[in-house]
Amino acid sequence: MHDLLLRNVRPMAGQSCDILIRHGKIAGLGSYRPEDGMAVEDANGAIVVPGLIDAHTHLDKTTWGMPWHVNDRPAILRGRIDFERENRQEIGINAHRQSMRHAIGLAANGASHIRSHVDIDTRHGLSLVEGVWKTRDALKDIIDIEIVAFPQSGVMVMPGTVELLDEALAQGCEVLGGIDPCGIDRDPKGQLDILFTLAVRHGVPIDIHLHEAADLGAFTMELIFERIRANGMEGKVAISHAFALGMNDYVRVGKLIEEIARLDVAILTTGAPSVNVPSIMRLKEAEVRVGGGCDGIRDTWGPWGQPDMLDRAKVIGMKNGLRTDQELAHVLHVVSKGGADVMRIDGYGLDVGCNADFTLLTGETLAHAVVDTAPRPLVVKNGRVIARQGKAIVEMP
Amino acid sequence: MHDLLLRNVRPMAGQSCDILIRHGKIAGLGSYRPEDGMAVEDANGAIVVPGLIDAHTHLDKTTWGMPWHVNDRPAILRGRIDFERENRQEIGINAHRQSMRHAIGLAANGASHIRSHVDIDTRHGLSLVEGVWKTRDALKDIIDIEIVAFPQSGVMVMPGTVELLDEALAQGCEVLGGIDPCGIDRDPKGQLDILFTLAVRHGVPIDIHLHEAADLGAFTMELIFERIRANGMEGKVAISHAFALGMNDYVRVGKLIEEIARLDVAILTTGAPSVNVPSIMRLKEAEVRVGGGCDGIRDTWGPWGQPDMLDRAKVIGMKNGLRTDQELAHVLHVVSKGGADVMRIDGYGLDVGCNADFTLLTGETLAHAVVDTAPRPLVVKNGRVIARQGKAIVEMP
Ligand SMILES: [Zn+2]
Ligand SMILES: [Zn+2]
Repeated sequence: MHDLLLRNVRPMAGQSCDILIRHGKIAGLGSYRPEDGMAVEDANGAIVVPGLIDAHTHLDKTTWGMPWHVNDRPAILRGRIDFERENRQEIGINAHRQSMRHAIGLAANGASHIRSHVDIDTRHGLSLVEGVWKTRDALKDIIDIEIVAFPQSGVMVMPGTVELLDEALAQGCEVLGGIDPCGIDRDPKGQLDILFTLAVRHGVPIDIHLHEAADLGAFTMELIFERIRANGMEGKVAISHAFALGMNDYVRVGKLIEEIARLDVAILTTGAPSVNVPSIMRLKEAEVRVGGGCDGIRDTWGPWGQPDMLDRAKVIGMKNGLRTDQELAHVLHVVSKGGADVMRIDGYGLDVGCNADFTLLTGETLAHAVVDTAPRPLVVKNGRVIARQGKAIVEMP
Repeated sequence: MHDLLLRNVRPMAGQSCDILIRHGKIAGLGSYRPEDGMAVEDANGAIVVPGLIDAHTHLDKTTWGMPWHVNDRPAILRGRIDFERENRQEIGINAHRQSMRHAIGLAANGASHIRSHVDIDTRHGLSLVEGVWKTRDALKDIIDIEIVAFPQSGVMVMPGTVELLDEALAQGCEVLGGIDPCGIDRDPKGQLDILFTLAVRHGVPIDIHLHEAADLGAFTMELIFERIRANGMEGKVAISHAFALGMNDYVRVGKLIEEIARLDVAILTTGAPSVNVPSIMRLKEAEVRVGGGCDGIRDTWGPWGQPDMLDRAKVIGMKNGLRTDQELAHVLHVVSKGGADVMRIDGYGLDVGCNADFTLLTGETLAHAVVDTAPRPLVVKNGRVIARQGKAIVEMP
């Protein structure tokens, strides 16, 4: 926990001021003189925002920094899952090394917190989670990592997975994951009953991947809603992707969103460009908590993506057809405060007493900062500079 | 027209070789020793591809390099058109200066040719075209610019526009533009009859903006097809956007594509992220000529976009849900050879005798080069290096 005087910054693109940091917390915003021996940085009037939040990614599976992975396989979800599980070791996707690369990249581009799903399956047991835990420890002064125990290969169709999830939560995974109870597991009642039982037993929230679209996804959402009510899990469930909310039925989507707001379900979006996705502006109107995430980047699933939440803000913003300054400021909210609200991060923000986790942005306004592509001039974590001009103080392995 | 020895490149990511350039043309691919006084560049094994082609953009309207333009207006197409026409001068969007910035940016990022629509309306007459012509002359050794006389405000609804288009074509605009004959002009028969009459009179091709979706766009396409046949304009018409081909009706879209192929209509796509767009893989199967474009970047219409055809390849590729290496190589084709085929560029390619217009790309394979974000190491136009590491040899004004 560090002291720092950050001079001449514009919080949320507002008036220029200095930020005084003591013991890793914001001690004051105003005009300060450097004290003897205190670290000082001049931001030259750059915008400062709280740390960006990647609230949906997969640290264990990127091929970032590895030889190019040739993909000549058909685009079938189940096929991608099985291929990855059976080939990741042979390809050399070491979960620790790759999560180091991915997380350092995110930090260098201004992220302060990550929620990462990590595969748990009967082939790898908890070994991938252990690799990411090692990364979390190694990077504890650079970026915070929260892990979702993620049964990517399915729960009901892969006997033995429930016991592994139980073990992962006992060992400290903060969140329980799930995936397409119909599409992947072919047994929505079975998977959801088990997920909620496990979550209640361990007192953890749930964050479920729901690629299921239109009527199928709406059906699964209704099953989720029923179990939130039955288990008193209001405010503790997130639905990732939620493509069903992108269906072309304004009234029905409205009813789903009403229920989502009522049960305080969070939505995590990656702005998936090639499918129908939830409207972040409509979710904002309903006051639903919405975060953003890079999802997998350059992995065996697909080649796209950067370890950069501003790059992802562009993807989400363009997909949502956003154009006005107010809308662009909102997409920045989604990849920062929105994700923090989903993850319930304590002390997040730019107020006195908040964690000194923030990033400088280039541009005149928040909207300009979203579309600009320059590296982040400076990233601060716990009051310490951890990256300059897009380069972290730690090397990628 | 220049001589150059480019050593150690991999044409289309193939085997490494040298490229010998004489008088701005490719004289040979093989192994060469530098001659006395000849310019030599070592590419260190980088991929080389022919110049990228921005086959659909608007050089006259970007605010690139200007103070941030705040957009607080509703997202209505007609409103955007009218706001821009009435306010562009006051905002300070000088067509010459801004087209210089835009075109230099494209060249620095590897583009060798641009097809730019330029607004022609009763408020500005041909003054915007004249501004871009000035840019074309100033940059003639850097990048080739082709101009589409573009009646953005409409033809039938803006009396006097037909005469201006006629004049613009007489003065040398290479292509005749058009825009939403139903949606904007409210008179599809009227606009299309006039466009085809003008095109035939001046012997120029047509490139029409068609944002009209689904049934409406399909109707307009049918009217276009009828006039292509009636005027013998096969192979001389391009439809930009063609959102109707993104409609969710597989069979009907198939019939439209069959007719497009039969009449050798070209399609230009920008991969518009928030609407339904044509499938570039389906158009490829039908052997339709398809090019790509950045469209407007950072203008009064919207804040997104970069003057970079590789950035646009990512947008198009992600929107089309492309993942395999073969698909990614095709999206690179769309923003290079595909655009050249639409514009009928002579001497385009990497064969002996072709123009020495090319760009180096970073990455191991073509697919890798599409997803990588590093600046282009070197850009060559007419055998001369015109940019290094993303920086052009001419300064932006
Ligand atoms: Zn995911
Ligand atoms: Zn356009």
